[in-house]
Formats: sequence, C-alpha cells, structure tokens
Amino acid sequence: MGRVTKVLTPAQRIAWLRLIRTDNVGPVTFRQLLNRFGSAEAAIEALPELSRKAGKPLNPISQARAEDEIAGLTRYGARLVAEGEPDYPAHLLHISGAPPLITLAGGEHLDWRRTVGIVGARNASSAGIKMTRLLASELGERGYTVVSGLARGIDTAAHRASLATGTVAVLAGGFDRIYPDENIPLAHDILDSGGALLTEMPLGWEPRSRDFPRRNRLVSGLSLGIVVVEAAKRSGSLITARLALEQNRDLFAVPGSPLDPRAEGGNALIQQGARLVTNAEDIIEVLGSADPARSALFDPEWRPDGEPVADSEPAADDRGRLLGALSSAPIEVDELIAQTGIAPHAMQILLLELDIGGQVEWSSGQLVALRHS
Amino acid sequence: MGRVTKVLTPAQRIAWLRLIRTDNVGPVTFRQLLNRFGSAEAAIEALPELSRKAGKPLNPISQARAEDEIAGLTRYGARLVAEGEPDYPAHLLHISGAPPLITLAGGEHLDWRRTVGIVGARNASSAGIKMTRLLASELGERGYTVVSGLARGIDTAAHRASLATGTVAVLAGGFDRIYPDENIPLAHDILDSGGALLTEMPLGWEPRSRDFPRRNRLVSGLSLGIVVVEAAKRSGSLITARLALEQNRDLFAVPGSPLDPRAEGGNALIQQGARLVTNAEDIIEVLGSADPARSALFDPEWRPDGEPVADSEPAADDRGRLLGALSSAPIEVDELIAQTGIAPHAMQILLLELDIGGQVEWSSGQLVALRHS
Repeated sequence: MGRVTKVLTPAQRIAWLRLIRTDNVGPVTFRQLLNRFGSAEAAIEALPELSRKAGKPLNPISQARAEDEIAGLTRYGARLVAEGEPDYPAHLLHISGAPPLITLAGGEHLDWRRTVGIVGARNASSAGIKMTRLLASELGERGYTVVSGLARGIDTAAHRASLATGTVAVLAGGFDRIYPDENIPLAHDILDSGGALLTEMPLGWEPRSRDFPRRNRLVSGLSLGIVVVEAAKRSGSLITARLALEQNRDLFAVPGSPLDPRAEGGNALIQQGARLVTNAEDIIEVLGSADPARSALFDPEWRPDGEPVADSEPAADDRGRLLGALSSAPIEVDELIAQTGIAPHAMQILLLELDIGGQVEWSSGQLVALRHS
Repeated sequence: MGRVTKVLTPAQRIAWLRLIRTDNVGPVTFRQLLNRFGSAEAAIEALPELSRKAGKPLNPISQARAEDEIAGLTRYGARLVAEGEPDYPAHLLHISGAPPLITLAGGEHLDWRRTVGIVGARNASSAGIKMTRLLASELGERGYTVVSGLARGIDTAAHRASLATGTVAVLAGGFDRIYPDENIPLAHDILDSGGALLTEMPLGWEPRSRDFPRRNRLVSGLSLGIVVVEAAKRSGSLITARLALEQNRDLFAVPGSPLDPRAEGGNALIQQGARLVTNAEDIIEVLGSADPARSALFDPEWRPDGEPVADSEPAADDRGRLLGALSSAPIEVDELIAQTGIAPHAMQILLLELDIGGQVEWSSGQLVALRHS
C-alpha cells in the first residue's frame, strides 16, 4: 500500500492555492494546467496568455490573499494539504476530480483507510437516529472511522456516536462557516476528540445549495463504502449514493417499512443493488475486502509538480474542428481525438482553453460537452 | 400451455383415496406404487405381499371408509381432485411430492395460473396488516389470485383483501377442521365469494404442528411467487419461503426497520436474494415472466393410471447392497445406482419396499436417506 509522497515547498503551496482559487479552475482544470505547464507557478505565469486565447479573464488570487488564507487557517488550527502529500487521505486519490488542495484540521491519528460514510435524512425519525447510533458506535468499536457531512439528523447522530472512536466531518463551506450553526459545538467536539474537519472550499466561503452535492462526493470519496440510513426520494443522500457508485464504493442501505416515506430512498437503493444492512456486521463483512484502488480513474502515482509535457501546439484550424465536434452530449476525449484527428497534446491544450473560457464542462472528469450559456 | 388430462372413474377415485390414506404411503410412495403396479387398484391388491417384504403391515382404508369420506365431502360441497384431472391446479403438477389427491371446494372460476402466495406473522403489526391489504387488493385488481394459509394475522388480511377478486385458502387439516376457529366465518366468506378451500388431509383430520409446514409447501406450490410480509426468525413463513425456493418460485419480501423484530425474517430473506417489495407493481413486474414449469422435477405428462413398468425383480443380494450404500446423509437415486450397480427398476422396487417399511425417508422427493428409528 506504499505510495510516493512529496511535501510542497511554502512557495509551491502558495502557488497551488492561488491557482485552485482562480475562477473557472476546478480540480480537473487544475490538473490539466499542471500537466501542461509543469508546475502551479508556471501555470500562473501562463494565465494572462491563456486568458487571451480563452477570451475570458483568468485572475489568480494575489500572493497576499493566499498568504492571508493560510494565516487564517493557522489561527483556526487548520492546514492545507496537497494531493500527493503524506497527510492527503489515500482513498481520495482514487476519485475523479479529487481536490488538489484540502483544508484539514485534526485527524492526525485517525485511520483514514478503514472508513465508512454514514449519511441520511436531516429530518430523521427517532428510529433512524437510533439505528445510526448503533451502526456508527459499533463500526467505531470495530476500528472504522466514520465519515459524514455534519448535517442535522443522521449525520449528527453518526458523528456523535463515533466521537470516541474517530470521525471526519466534511464541510460544504469554509472552515469559518460551519453549517448549520447549531452544529458548531459538534464541530468543536469532533476536533477535541481527535476527529477531523475537512473542506475544499476557501476560508470565508458561505455554502450554497450547489456546494452540498460537491461536498458529498468527498464524503463518499473518503470512504470505503457509504451507508444510507433514511432518505426520501430525490434527497441529497441519494446523490451521495450515486456518487459512491460512480466512485466504485460499496453501497449499503438500511431498509424500512414501505409505508414510511423516509424509507423510500433506502428501499429503492436496495432494489437497485445496494446491500441491505441490519447491523454493523453486515457492513464489516463486505468492507473487509474493499479496495478503493480498484476504481482508479486517474493514475494515483501522478506527481504533484513535474515536468511540463512535450510541446505540440494546436494547428490553426484545430480549434474550429474541435468546436464542430463538440455538442451538449458528453463525449470521451479519446473519441474526440479519433473523430477530429487532433493530436492528443494539442487536444489537451484546446480543451483546457475552452474549459477556462467556460465553453465546455466536464462530467465525471472523463467526459466533455459544450456548456449551455 | 395445453396439458393431457384424464378423469378418474368412480372406482379409480375410490382406489386412489384408499391408497393415499394408507399409513406410510405419502405422495412419493403413492406415485412409485402406481408406477410399479400400473394402477391404484393393482397396488392395493399387492399391499399384503409388500407388507410381508417390508416387515410392516400396510393396511389401506376400507372401501366403505373411502365412500364415507367422499359422501362427507359432498355434504360440505367439496370434491376430490386427482393429479392429472382437469381441475387439478396446474402449478402443483410441477412440485416435488405433489399430492395425488386434493380436496377442493369452490374456485371453479378462479385463475389458478396467475397466482401469488402471501404469508406472514400471525401476530402481525398494524403496519404489516395494512401493507398486506394494499398488496393483496392491488394484486387482485391486476388479475392475480391470492393464495394463503387461513392463519391469523397476515394470512387473514391477505384473504379478506382479495375476497372480491379471488382467493385460495390452503388448510393444514380436514375440511371439517378449519383452524383457527375464529376464521370459520372467513372460510365461508371465501366460498361465498367464489374463492376456494383446498387440503390434502382427510376429512376429520385435526391439524397437528407438523402439518403446517406440509401445508405451506402447497401454498408455495400453488403460487408463481411467495410474498413474505412480516416474519420473525425461525417462523413458519420462513419455512414457506424455503419451500418456495426449492420449488423454484419467485420469492419476495417486504422490508422493515432492523429495530422491528417482525422485520427480521423479511430483511434476512432480502439479504439472501429475495426481491424487496414496496408495492404490487414490484411483484407483477417479475411474475409477468414467471413459469413454474421451469422447475419441473417430475414429468408433468405422467399418466394418472398407466401400464405397469417392465418387470425386473431385484437380485438376491441387491437389498443388502442397497442398505450398505444408504446412510443418514440424503443421496440421489442415480448416485445409488452408480454406486451399487443395481438395475434402475430393481432399485425402484427396493426403495419402495424400504420406504413402505419405514426404513428410508425422502427429502425433496429426490434424495433418499436411512430413517432414524
């Protein structure tokens, strides 16, 4: 299970932070920029030229603002951890669109490999809360770290029941924007007990509704498997369940009476193939042999800062040809290369420019489509 | 779906009844006797000789007692239906150890092919009762006949909710021994509404505890699939579920909270592969393509009264060799033939004699073992 790790220099860390905090630069684009230019510093230098090509300004945050964020995090007892660094949670390396930088507080002695996510309804029933407590405490006693989203209801019960054994709360906003307010004491209890708080969002970021599904991909990404305790149809927990399947994680659901609307989501998941869970043993039996590496979509040995890729600039008409080949239907890059005849490196550069220009969007980090404006 | 049927003559019917009511003659032995001697009449004539070989008296009931039972059934508005007759329920032909004769009242206009068994706890919860009503009434509206066991709780709810559309109650005792007493009015309601009562036990037979699992094999045998609504661990409903699987029937279970002991059986069945059911549509989707003939262990075209099989008497030492090969571990007859070198017909005769002598027992109608005395 050994992996190659490398610690960023302070200058590199600031460059990574400036680049990932740039508008229109998400995890996929960040990685493409690093691949193209060899380092975050070089990518930042190249941004003005890229902005011109993309027809859109690309303004990295200033060196001073990045330093301010790091100083602010330090005051909160939090630190920035880059993909590839020793503290970066191993399972996250295997998800598509892994955050290049996470903010982390606590968790130094947690087991980040034996992890289970427990998610469910905010307006949970007392039976759902009880079930969550039973599962989380027994999983904890059996050596598993419990991951959840610090929401009301099931999430709260999962964290509280695993305080003694180790729990990780993934936030949808910045470190100084714990949501909901009523769970600020729980966040402190998690840190006091040796657990961890984790987010990919900047300090000061107020979580918006779209940030919760984004956060959910980290809850599942950090976990060997996800347990859904109570979930209505079309709920956030079902989004987490879908993401867990996309990430090739094991999916578990607690059943309930078909007469109880809070059981609809879980029962539907079981019908679709999730494992029915009645106790922690049902989960442990399966997770004993779980291996997130089987889902690796990216090369986990990717170097955080490496050499720039060999130059092969796009030809004059490549951009037009690529735009002609793209549509709103997501398509694989290999397919685009086959269809257009554009060289792979040139394709990468063009897609990067279009991405930064907001003209294309990625799904699952693998499929690209024209963005609807 | 056409099948060859034949109606017994009155004399044949009486002979069948005398033979099946003989002690030590169950459905498997009955069929072996008919195969060996060509008719029930010939088998009855051969019983004294067989008794001597088996070292055990084999006394068929008298002609008069058989006539009395038939007269008694007629007073109850019931009739005897033999395997192979037009009224014999088609799906029963495909189960191992199908009863050669059943007693049937009502049901002339029922659909005996589109059938669903619904079984569950006697001490059902109000939610379980409600769920049963929803499932049974919707299955009825969609053209399915609901089969159950006339027990308290789930069975009662299943019959009541399908009175208007067609229901079959399978009894564990005789026609004049409806159990439990409180369901005698329900039995009348079933007949009044065009439903059916069915049993393989003699008139006057008081049901004993061992008769209920035996009855359960008919509930599942009559049905394309079995739905378990609420079942504790080690309950009769789980026996029905196991029998349904042995009969290659589709198995469905209603889930429930793991905190509810009444959900334990259903949840465990789902973990083992039963389909999770939240509404009637979940069942209909699957049963639309169900076919009990796929499970045929016996030849369904078997003639109710045919020619005796070609004679090939056992050799002098065959009996000893067979007893040496048998143990308490059930074994297939083909395997016994391969191991002992005894000719198939001779093997059939020897096993029949041992069976009638109470020295062997059959499981699933296919495996034979020494009986523990």
